[in-house]
Amino acid sequence: MKIALAQLNYCIGDFGPNTKKIIEAAHKAKAEGTDLVVFSELSVCGYFPFDCLGFTDFINKCNQALDTIAAECSEIPLIVGAPVVAEEGEKRLFNAAVFMHQGRRQVFKKKRIGSHPLFDERDYFEPSPDDDQLLELGGLRLAVVVGDDLSNWGSDPILMENRIDELANLHPDVVVALAASVFDYTMPRYRCNTLRQTVLKHEFPLIMVNQVGAQTHLIFDGGSMAFANNGHVDTALPFFEEGVQIVDTENLVLHRTGDDRLVIPEKMSLIHDALVLGVRDYFHKMGFKEAIIGLSGGLDSALVTYIAAKALGAENVRVLLLPSQFSTDHSVTDAVALAEKLGVRYDTVAIKPVYDSFEAALQPFFEGRPFDVTEENLQARIRGVILMAFGNKFGNILLNTSNKSEASVGYGTLYGDMCGGLSVIGDVYKTEAYELARYINKEDEIIPWHTINKVPSAELRPDQKDSDSLPDYAILDGILFQYIEKSKSAEEIVSLGFDRATVERTLRMVNRNEFKRQQVAPILRVSPRAFGAERQVPVVARF
Amino acid sequence: MKIALAQLNYCIGDFGPNTKKIIEAAHKAKAEGTDLVVFSELSVCGYFPFDCLGFTDFINKCNQALDTIAAECSEIPLIVGAPVVAEEGEKRLFNAAVFMHQGRRQVFKKKRIGSHPLFDERDYFEPSPDDDQLLELGGLRLAVVVGDDLSNWGSDPILMENRIDELANLHPDVVVALAASVFDYTMPRYRCNTLRQTVLKHEFPLIMVNQVGAQTHLIFDGGSMAFANNGHVDTALPFFEEGVQIVDTENLVLHRTGDDRLVIPEKMSLIHDALVLGVRDYFHKMGFKEAIIGLSGGLDSALVTYIAAKALGAENVRVLLLPSQFSTDHSVTDAVALAEKLGVRYDTVAIKPVYDSFEAALQPFFEGRPFDVTEENLQARIRGVILMAFGNKFGNILLNTSNKSEASVGYGTLYGDMCGGLSVIGDVYKTEAYELARYINKEDEIIPWHTINKVPSAELRPDQKDSDSLPDYAILDGILFQYIEKSKSAEEIVSLGFDRATVERTLRMVNRNEFKRQQVAPILRVSPRAFGAERQVPVVARF
Repeated sequence: MKIALAQLNYCIGDFGPNTKKIIEAAHKAKAEGTDLVVFSELSVCGYFPFDCLGFTDFINKCNQALDTIAAECSEIPLIVGAPVVAEEGEKRLFNAAVFMHQGRRQVFKKKRIGSHPLFDERDYFEPSPDDDQLLELGGLRLAVVVGDDLSNWGSDPILMENRIDELANLHPDVVVALAASVFDYTMPRYRCNTLRQTVLKHEFPLIMVNQVGAQTHLIFDGGSMAFANNGHVDTALPFFEEGVQIVDTENLVLHRTGDDRLVIPEKMSLIHDALVLGVRDYFHKMGFKEAIIGLSGGLDSALVTYIAAKALGAENVRVLLLPSQFSTDHSVTDAVALAEKLGVRYDTVAIKPVYDSFEAALQPFFEGRPFDVTEENLQARIRGVILMAFGNKFGNILLNTSNKSEASVGYGTLYGDMCGGLSVIGDVYKTEAYELARYINKEDEIIPWHTINKVPSAELRPDQKDSDSLPDYAILDGILFQYIEKSKSAEEIVSLGFDRATVERTLRMVNRNEFKRQQVAPILRVSPRAFGAERQVPVVARF
Repeated sequence: MKIALAQLNYCIGDFGPNTKKIIEAAHKAKAEGTDLVVFSELSVCGYFPFDCLGFTDFINKCNQALDTIAAECSEIPLIVGAPVVAEEGEKRLFNAAVFMHQGRRQVFKKKRIGSHPLFDERDYFEPSPDDDQLLELGGLRLAVVVGDDLSNWGSDPILMENRIDELANLHPDVVVALAASVFDYTMPRYRCNTLRQTVLKHEFPLIMVNQVGAQTHLIFDGGSMAFANNGHVDTALPFFEEGVQIVDTENLVLHRTGDDRLVIPEKMSLIHDALVLGVRDYFHKMGFKEAIIGLSGGLDSALVTYIAAKALGAENVRVLLLPSQFSTDHSVTDAVALAEKLGVRYDTVAIKPVYDSFEAALQPFFEGRPFDVTEENLQARIRGVILMAFGNKFGNILLNTSNKSEASVGYGTLYGDMCGGLSVIGDVYKTEAYELARYINKEDEIIPWHTINKVPSAELRPDQKDSDSLPDYAILDGILFQYIEKSKSAEEIVSLGFDRATVERTLRMVNRNEFKRQQVAPILRVSPRAFGAERQVPVVARF
């Protein structure tokens, strides 16, 4: 049997285009001789729709989409993902894979409704009450499973018992899984390894179709796969792009080993491609065209400008140079060099006159008080206001350029450099930002080496350096990784060899700046723990 | 037996002061002749601590707090709430009530670990595996229960089976419940009614000790109660303030009816007191002293200024009048009248010179383009920058003044009037804001009647009125309530009698402005559904 793996990019709730995309892919695969087309989890509406699942309209439109697909693809056996209501008029929802062909429908409901720190399916779906059943098609017996039923990709203990073990008792010829697996830079390898273990344990072929595309901050990396019964990857779809490929199940029963078709890119390549996709999908799915970025001459804004140009085309990226009296000459020359290299439009607006007008307005109240963080923030906020004014006047969307190290310790100005509709590198530590820049420059100097090699500075006061206020980034990021990603306590981090005073100071900065992080734009998630829904710490707390 | 209900206000993670507060209350109650002191759910650490429960340090400190309380109150039988580890070194946590007396400890673990839209206990706690047991004390048999075990105050179907039914089989003499019930304006009455039903069903006395105080956006209203076995409220603690009261269980066995001691205040009184407590606790628990507010002469900022003065004292509130070229004279006079009535410090900073300097900086790029939303936002953002500059220079915290109607439809400027560390009335619709103002003015004109009665306007362009862009607030709020609080679809709202075009336009505005709401400060929650954690809608979606 020839099965098409349809790895597509859906926009949540955009039923017309999602349905059209599914129908077109089905017809194309059929024309190429497929016997069954498989789409990803909740493909009719896009994954994950959150509270939209509670809107009657939304569920009605999911049902209409199923009917339209069934009507338009009547002769094409296919399996799509959809939320399915228990019985008409009922509230109970299931996360289901729906097989449709010539008026026949068979619904496979997800059994393991799990909790992911990013969203909790238990708030929306009920576990399937049905007994396990197989899909009989073309002489084969297919086990059809949804998402977490395939494998425990999260850490929820209730999912630890592998659902596949139960299905294996039915002795399917092939397992077909509809997935929507959230990307982080560890996930492609982890996913492949756990699936392979499942295959090796039960010795059946396994086909996994994953969603691709970014849904606001959540990125889905695709990388759908077909495993032969000996654990060999027979077919691997690309990461971070759509693709449809046909697998012959006869090729999945093997007793030889061969070279894996799956090549998992290295960390910086994954992060790079994820961020480009994240920016592109944010703009295209929202119907936005042009980005605007404040380009300082430093590393972070350089990276964001590069990513935006890659995602949207240089012609859709505009940058502003906003030097103040404390900006160095090399900041301007580095920024111009990057803009010219990328071919993005750049303009310069010196902020000194506006700064002076604020100083004059504030002078009666601030008189006699020294220059402090107020005046530093003032510069950052003037830049924010100018960038937003351009955004409003020309319909550009401002991209935020904060990195994860800054976001962690609150080294940024709320309503200043923390402005923007999307945080592009807010899940990338500063040391990773350097690595990413070197990855981008591996063949050509795209980001000026001077930008990468100079001493980092916010340039908000004379001769300022980041290291005046923060530990060295290599140390800071090491501590932050243990605290944020690994949830280690101060004691545990010190025991890893970090200086106690630095650890305590760093953790204090992280805890004290929760209020800033709660007002930041969605952050493209590339690590196993990004700021946002998966790290819920009270703003008001003494800890 | 005399039981003290200790309704206290805890700061999350502030172990020293929380422990001290518990010990002092226990000693004071003991001195007054009590036989048992009962505190609220998770009292040693404050409720709800979110991911702090995953920090080893945090749990260690909870254990130390229990030990300290046990040592300092060895002669006082008491029950405190604490997270309890299954076995030393294990990760599994229980939400427990811990009875301690003279070295004896008895732990009662919560059985119904439920999901609240605001937080999900299932992410942190496991349900008790223990068989039900009673606390034998002073010749009485007490059933000790935690939070949701008492009653289903949420809507989670797994909680529908009332836990008390099971405990009733043990025939306790008294039920003692440790609670932390999140406030909204429907909750005090709902809580009392459901508890009373439980009591009437089983005919046992019931004592419920609730937490009081605000934890960032979540407010706990107190209102602890003791019911006699006939459903009569024998003792009622105050709402929104700390209190310790002693109940004699002999008075809880009654066969007469009498006047209830519980008086539930009306909606505006509840909202008023909740907001005052919310602001006060945000400042005091964070260690902040002074608030700053931009006072426009309109209703919203007037309300926030009044609430801040009430919460922090007039001497700790500073307001700025920030008129632009479009501000009316009455805006300034109304603002001054309020500031003088409340006795808060006010200063005026005209924003025209700063506005002109931005115009000059932007003129080379904007030339020939008409005045539009850019220039409106520019005024709001200049105000934001000036308020934040004062905040930075003098250490004041800016309070946000957006109401729920504006937040719903995006009628506000990001990084402008949407600035601030805490959104005070972001869960109060405009029509409710009017009601609240009239409630405040019921005895004296505190908020100028002219502020309340004039036509609402943002005053960002000549002769602007809110009704230029928005439906009449009475209609708008009616639609919003059905959509936000009631999750009704457009069709359902239209069927209630609202105009179809207005409904569709309103819902479109709500959906399109999710990106603004994701960057707003925590909102003090007073309604059954506030923006924030309990309404999760994707920013990128077409629906």
